[in-house]
Amino acid sequence: MSGELIRIFDTTLRDGEQSPGCSMNLNEKLSLARQLERLGVDVIEAGFPIASDGDFDSVQAIAKTLDDVIVCGLARTAKLDIDRAGQAVESGKKPRIHTFIATSDIHLEHKLRMSREQVLEEVDRAVRQAKSYVDDVEFSAEDATRSDRDYLVEVFSTAVAAGASTLNVPDTVGYTTPREYGALIEYLREHVEGARDASGIIFSVHCHNDLGLAVANSLAAIRAGARQIECTVNGIGERAGNTSLEEIVMALKTRSDEFNGLETGINTVEIYPSSRLLSSVTGVQVQPNKAIVGDNAFAHEAGIHQDGVLKAAITYEIMTPESIGRASNELVLGKHSGRHAFRDRLLELGFEVEGDNFERAFRRFKSLADAKKVIYNEDLEAIVSDSLQTLDDRYGFESLVLQCGSDIPPSARVRLQLDEKVVEREASGVGPVDAIFRAISDLTETSSELIQYQVHAVTAGLDAQGEVSVTIEEEGRRVIGNGVHEDVMVASAKAYVHALNKLEWHKQRRHVDAPRGI
Amino acid sequence: MSGELIRIFDTTLRDGEQSPGCSMNLNEKLSLARQLERLGVDVIEAGFPIASDGDFDSVQAIAKTLDDVIVCGLARTAKLDIDRAGQAVESGKKPRIHTFIATSDIHLEHKLRMSREQVLEEVDRAVRQAKSYVDDVEFSAEDATRSDRDYLVEVFSTAVAAGASTLNVPDTVGYTTPREYGALIEYLREHVEGARDASGIIFSVHCHNDLGLAVANSLAAIRAGARQIECTVNGIGERAGNTSLEEIVMALKTRSDEFNGLETGINTVEIYPSSRLLSSVTGVQVQPNKAIVGDNAFAHEAGIHQDGVLKAAITYEIMTPESIGRASNELVLGKHSGRHAFRDRLLELGFEVEGDNFERAFRRFKSLADAKKVIYNEDLEAIVSDSLQTLDDRYGFESLVLQCGSDIPPSARVRLQLDEKVVEREASGVGPVDAIFRAISDLTETSSELIQYQVHAVTAGLDAQGEVSVTIEEEGRRVIGNGVHEDVMVASAKAYVHALNKLEWHKQRRHVDAPRGI
Repeated sequence: MSGELIRIFDTTLRDGEQSPGCSMNLNEKLSLARQLERLGVDVIEAGFPIASDGDFDSVQAIAKTLDDVIVCGLARTAKLDIDRAGQAVESGKKPRIHTFIATSDIHLEHKLRMSREQVLEEVDRAVRQAKSYVDDVEFSAEDATRSDRDYLVEVFSTAVAAGASTLNVPDTVGYTTPREYGALIEYLREHVEGARDASGIIFSVHCHNDLGLAVANSLAAIRAGARQIECTVNGIGERAGNTSLEEIVMALKTRSDEFNGLETGINTVEIYPSSRLLSSVTGVQVQPNKAIVGDNAFAHEAGIHQDGVLKAAITYEIMTPESIGRASNELVLGKHSGRHAFRDRLLELGFEVEGDNFERAFRRFKSLADAKKVIYNEDLEAIVSDSLQTLDDRYGFESLVLQCGSDIPPSARVRLQLDEKVVEREASGVGPVDAIFRAISDLTETSSELIQYQVHAVTAGLDAQGEVSVTIEEEGRRVIGNGVHEDVMVASAKAYVHALNKLEWHKQRRHVDAPRGI
Repeated sequence: MSGELIRIFDTTLRDGEQSPGCSMNLNEKLSLARQLERLGVDVIEAGFPIASDGDFDSVQAIAKTLDDVIVCGLARTAKLDIDRAGQAVESGKKPRIHTFIATSDIHLEHKLRMSREQVLEEVDRAVRQAKSYVDDVEFSAEDATRSDRDYLVEVFSTAVAAGASTLNVPDTVGYTTPREYGALIEYLREHVEGARDASGIIFSVHCHNDLGLAVANSLAAIRAGARQIECTVNGIGERAGNTSLEEIVMALKTRSDEFNGLETGINTVEIYPSSRLLSSVTGVQVQPNKAIVGDNAFAHEAGIHQDGVLKAAITYEIMTPESIGRASNELVLGKHSGRHAFRDRLLELGFEVEGDNFERAFRRFKSLADAKKVIYNEDLEAIVSDSLQTLDDRYGFESLVLQCGSDIPPSARVRLQLDEKVVEREASGVGPVDAIFRAISDLTETSSELIQYQVHAVTAGLDAQGEVSVTIEEEGRRVIGNGVHEDVMVASAKAYVHALNKLEWHKQRRHVDAPRGI
């Protein structure tokens, strides 16, 4: 191994973004990428350029924007995949191409329909092609943990000979255990040709959490000599998600005695802001008992007035909320704050908002400050993620009047902007949300299916803003729209309109059966 | 070790119930206890009898009700604690007392202010006292993972000599790692006097998830010879929660090759119904990427139309949704279904509802069946958990009329039943929820603080019911109230009224600084 730093490879924008409802637009991805740079990750996997033009544009924009972090594009071994990935990252300061192919017999037989020999040839050709674009090439053996060990050795040896410098060992289906995975990494380190200590070759791990073991598997791999961890903020990702960045980083920090003092380059006080930013951009919240970033993760914030905790925090706390940047409920701005203070605060929260977006966000802030006594960080996040949405939108929310109750039929009158015209419709329904959504789908002549509807108050207090997230599906495409307002019914209308706009955008962007990666 | 069965000790009703907002009343606890018995757990820790009369009553009622499962009450080593625990469980068929005391120097110094010798005396006395009530005594060394190893050996040896047959090794603060924890269990098995193989002594593990390692730590302990796992449904519990029952069980089942074929007695098809029952009773949902029970945990349910998945489930699925009882969106009942079919279906979902509760639930079902095309299991869960609430309530929701929108001030007229009288009030607010809650707090003359407000649609579809959960706090007491209705504003009013009723009930039940356990 080439050093005692553990590299953090963040795939929130690629594997994370592939999870249902977590898709993000270019602006949202850029905001997150900048926050990940502040967080101090070593590598950002920014997308899968062949998957769609939107993915390509995001990877390219992130590669051009960031200076201090490696920006990586994912590619299958196909020639066209690697060309697109190369074109997307080559203008960046620190470009990487990450290419992968499955190596388990299950995948070879059922998915690839290729022989082991054919796969070896693909690996050699693909890595060499990637090297023609960039120096820094990572190779992944998809479903490595269900692959034949000695065949894996051949595959990785081929990748090293062709010029790959990072070898990733994905537990694609979340099947392995710490003991087994550690042993696999050790075996590979011993047997892969050209990858012995001091060769500069880095072994990398990429775990999924289907059995709740992603963090432990990654830690076992580190003990066995792996030096890069692929992970996501809040552990989002396919199915049960990926290794959670905040858990692996805080486990290494809190128990450095167990891991030979190995360190990451993560600036841990940016962990909580990163988690919040992702939640507010996607509308997907973490559960209250989520480790590190959940509402209840720290005893003294959870309304527990326990004798032991009061007597000495050390009796129950192995890390402090401050160490991950949780200074909750901090009053940040008042109604007299100006543009300058507002912009500074947004920057601290990870948002660089300019032009029309900034003006819209500032107006929303001022009107909120009139309605609400105290403006918290969470309010600002909600306002800004609401303002980031409105690029190139086909539909715009104008106004709502609603009547409902226990003994009267709900009725909603909604006014929208639709392709530059203002249109209005009244509708009834089973409940008020039904009435609002019917009015909107009548006006927009859309027929998506409602999959999930959720609301949470952005902060505590009766005057809190409501943040609504609406999941809808049309022809196999699933999107989440968000809306925020002090009136949850208005927020519901905005969220539905946002979801319909996203659906329009995704229709142009990504095919339903676009490739999905390791 | 005395066998090759891994005992599942469920502490959802004790450690789980202590997490913020997860408190349950007697009816709710009984429903869950019956479901846990169907699930096939070996031990149910039903509560902490000394903590409050409500806890005592719940433990006693559960011990009397269940036949096939060990019912356990928690107690510190204090004489009064053990008396209460003994009285609570002694009428059960399989009673256990679980007594604990901290053994780490940190806790001895900052919390207990006792010497090591004093603690040893307490252990001896407490276990003997517990044995005077029941044969089956479990002893826990709180904060074992930060305790001196050789002192731990002394403590456990003392417990064995006094008659304890289960020795629990809690990682109270969620600090340990799989390697370290496995080594600790091995050391204890070797050194604790009277606890060698074939002695009948069972080593037990109790892990917290602060670093995301609870499941992996428990599995490492099993490899080292532990034979009881303490865990909770959905992994609820203090801070980041406990070992998640569904994850540990499915890891053992899916990877039995890694664990010498060790088995649990769990009927895995009851896992998903148990998870849903807990969520609907507490109003605390799991995140979409929660392993095993999250909405996205299984690829083919998550709207992913991936080539590989379609070609062969085996390429991405290491377990099936059916194996944990997930047969989602199943149509169960229509508007013509009668009482008998309704009752049968509720029993299958884990609800035994009788008398007034049943009649109320049946009426709600009939009226919902008029409004909503399709009635899913989730609808029935929501209706029933709504009906379980209304015992001994001081406040009752009667009706609501609401007006709101983007350009008009929201106004709400609420009618409540209050100590047998019907009262009515109109109020305005920042948003409609604010207006409704203000009307209710005016009517009830209460002044709790709103901590969190959340809504989710119970099922997909525009005509779905909305389930609202409201977290409020008063003088350090925090409760969650739930309400369900096809009109989310009506559901909001019901949820707030429910929360206020719960607060009333908890004022009588549990002191804010009641003891909290390992």
